[in-house]
Amino acid sequence: MINIQEAHQLIRSNCNAHRIVEMDLLEANLQILAESVIAAMDTPPFDQSAMDGYAFAFDKTGDSNALKLTGEIQAGTYSTALLSNGETVRIYTGAPLPAGADTVVVQENVELACEYVKLVDALLVKGGNVRKQGSQGKKGDVILDKGQILTPAGISLLAGNGLTQVKIYGNPVVHIINTGKELVKPGETIRLGEIYESNSFGLAAALDQLGIKPGQISVVDDEEDIILDCIHKNLKADILILTGGVSVGDYDLVALALERAGVKKIFHKVKQKPGKPFYFGVFNQTLVFGLPGNPAAMLTCFYTYIVPAIEAFTKKTYFRKIQLPLASDYKKKAGLTHFLKGKIVGHAVMILDGQESYLMNSFALADCILELEEQKEIFLKGELMTLRLII
Amino acid sequence: MINIQEAHQLIRSNCNAHRIVEMDLLEANLQILAESVIAAMDTPPFDQSAMDGYAFAFDKTGDSNALKLTGEIQAGTYSTALLSNGETVRIYTGAPLPAGADTVVVQENVELACEYVKLVDALLVKGGNVRKQGSQGKKGDVILDKGQILTPAGISLLAGNGLTQVKIYGNPVVHIINTGKELVKPGETIRLGEIYESNSFGLAAALDQLGIKPGQISVVDDEEDIILDCIHKNLKADILILTGGVSVGDYDLVALALERAGVKKIFHKVKQKPGKPFYFGVFNQTLVFGLPGNPAAMLTCFYTYIVPAIEAFTKKTYFRKIQLPLASDYKKKAGLTHFLKGKIVGHAVMILDGQESYLMNSFALADCILELEEQKEIFLKGELMTLRLII
Repeated sequence: MINIQEAHQLIRSNCNAHRIVEMDLLEANLQILAESVIAAMDTPPFDQSAMDGYAFAFDKTGDSNALKLTGEIQAGTYSTALLSNGETVRIYTGAPLPAGADTVVVQENVELACEYVKLVDALLVKGGNVRKQGSQGKKGDVILDKGQILTPAGISLLAGNGLTQVKIYGNPVVHIINTGKELVKPGETIRLGEIYESNSFGLAAALDQLGIKPGQISVVDDEEDIILDCIHKNLKADILILTGGVSVGDYDLVALALERAGVKKIFHKVKQKPGKPFYFGVFNQTLVFGLPGNPAAMLTCFYTYIVPAIEAFTKKTYFRKIQLPLASDYKKKAGLTHFLKGKIVGHAVMILDGQESYLMNSFALADCILELEEQKEIFLKGELMTLRLII
Repeated sequence: MINIQEAHQLIRSNCNAHRIVEMDLLEANLQILAESVIAAMDTPPFDQSAMDGYAFAFDKTGDSNALKLTGEIQAGTYSTALLSNGETVRIYTGAPLPAGADTVVVQENVELACEYVKLVDALLVKGGNVRKQGSQGKKGDVILDKGQILTPAGISLLAGNGLTQVKIYGNPVVHIINTGKELVKPGETIRLGEIYESNSFGLAAALDQLGIKPGQISVVDDEEDIILDCIHKNLKADILILTGGVSVGDYDLVALALERAGVKKIFHKVKQKPGKPFYFGVFNQTLVFGLPGNPAAMLTCFYTYIVPAIEAFTKKTYFRKIQLPLASDYKKKAGLTHFLKGKIVGHAVMILDGQESYLMNSFALADCILELEEQKEIFLKGELMTLRLII
């Protein structure tokens, strides 16, 4: 049986796929740019007043500093008249300077008399209160680099540049197959021996956290031919997730069906708790994950192994890892890495009660997963732990 | 002019609204529960085998410890036969124990001979490897408390309980009005004096980060009657955001139009940079925010003031605040609180170049906003800063 470091390494070395897609700006929110974005125009696109004030030619004001007011330019309009020496126009923030002008005096620093504007701004310099064309960026400049996350501010920047589409690393297509004869859809009536199917809900919600809508979701009986048929229909996904049926019981048929479907097993079983029966294989470019049916084990494997595989596909980081001291002592046996549901309380992390693989009560309250080393047995209060945030 | 503490306080004291909605589990992902969730059934719903093995009555095995194999129970099926003394059935993980049985021996700990199963498990106790009905939770128990965030694991827990709907604090309806005669839709052609409208994109993307789709988005000219008419049409929102036109220029008509519409001004202008002209008012239960048109000032005000207002509505926390040391010295003048775009680099926070209110290049790269105290002028490398994460 391999350990978790080997499992991570084997998954990583099989994560070679990605998909570059062109998208509307808003749809690309928080995705990673797959190519650098080039400015389509100068920003600002013209010499622009930075303030409400009066525009004029700095070197041609004459001795009196009194300028004749000849017009007004509101933002969104422009003047075709050439400003002559000794003239000025009322101008508003964002409006284009008229030809002949190079400087703006702010409205608080003038005296108005009839049709004349007298400058009273000893600190004003030539070009003052003007944003020169292209001062924020020139047409043809790289405005955002490949590999940058496209933030809301980045979307605003690109929209301001007139752009409507952008190339990003797209999300993988993720199909889900839940196996188990005992599974009944929530809301329906269960009979003795049956339970409600919850794994597709947990997985769909966890994918939604990453901004990914699952593709096909199937729930099938524990019968090898039925599982095989369903695998065949879902092998075109980038990532195929199966839940249940990966242990060694007589009815744990997922590994057998995957083998018959031509999926190449990379590993099956990892020295970890929960999630020991975890399976990973590949079929062409498709990554195939077999997760235990117990919901807490299933979600632990998702956050621990499938999130990094999705990160490799989208080049994105979904959850921060942080370090916090342990709130109280904890003991475990050596031999398996333990993944524990934790909750941050003040400046420490508390290990929640109820860590069994079938218990979801504690997982529902958890905001992080702690990873407790395979061979280590005693963890003391105050010890610094690395945690993977999950919300 | 008020300071930012007063602004926060005035907004907070007007944030009294919320909306409780019943939703499908998956739609409620990551929202806050508005009422405690009560278990609809026992979990597990029957005495369930925890392992693949053999079920039998612990006290009635007889001296030989050899039990007669009488049948098999797969998960999802059940047996109606009463198990007699000295009998056992093959049973699989998740399957219901037959009547008369109370204990399961795992398949590794038996010897099989013809139709007999011999127990070889000295450590086995009565009830071993059985999950008793209701051991995870009883029908009628509170399984998740009001106020808890509904995580993917929580959704899995509730689905496993057969539930399909849940009551959560819903998102506010947010309408947006962008004002400015100079604004042209990205993708269209601009003429001299015009610029691309980017604020609706920045705001829609920032709302999308919170899982909120904006309601109405309008772009209107700087004409008081047009703005007034648009305000009238949008005052039914929970939150109305206007951008542009909140300064004191002759064409900054938003505050005037809001007054005519009957919106009660709570404050206008805050001792901060960027975003000094920031406006806040109320109309019945509707919160009305007037943001500067400059995109960096606009988004700064959104993250600083509107996100907390939305948090009050949904009871949720969207962005963590963390503390990190400053990567290099920084100086500012006293008198205004400065909000600066920052980027976390290793274990320090770097203040990005290009902090002017019209520059989006730096904001597009930022992952946090730093708040620099109003009266303080010098900030030294290594000083611990509080930062609001924005991605």
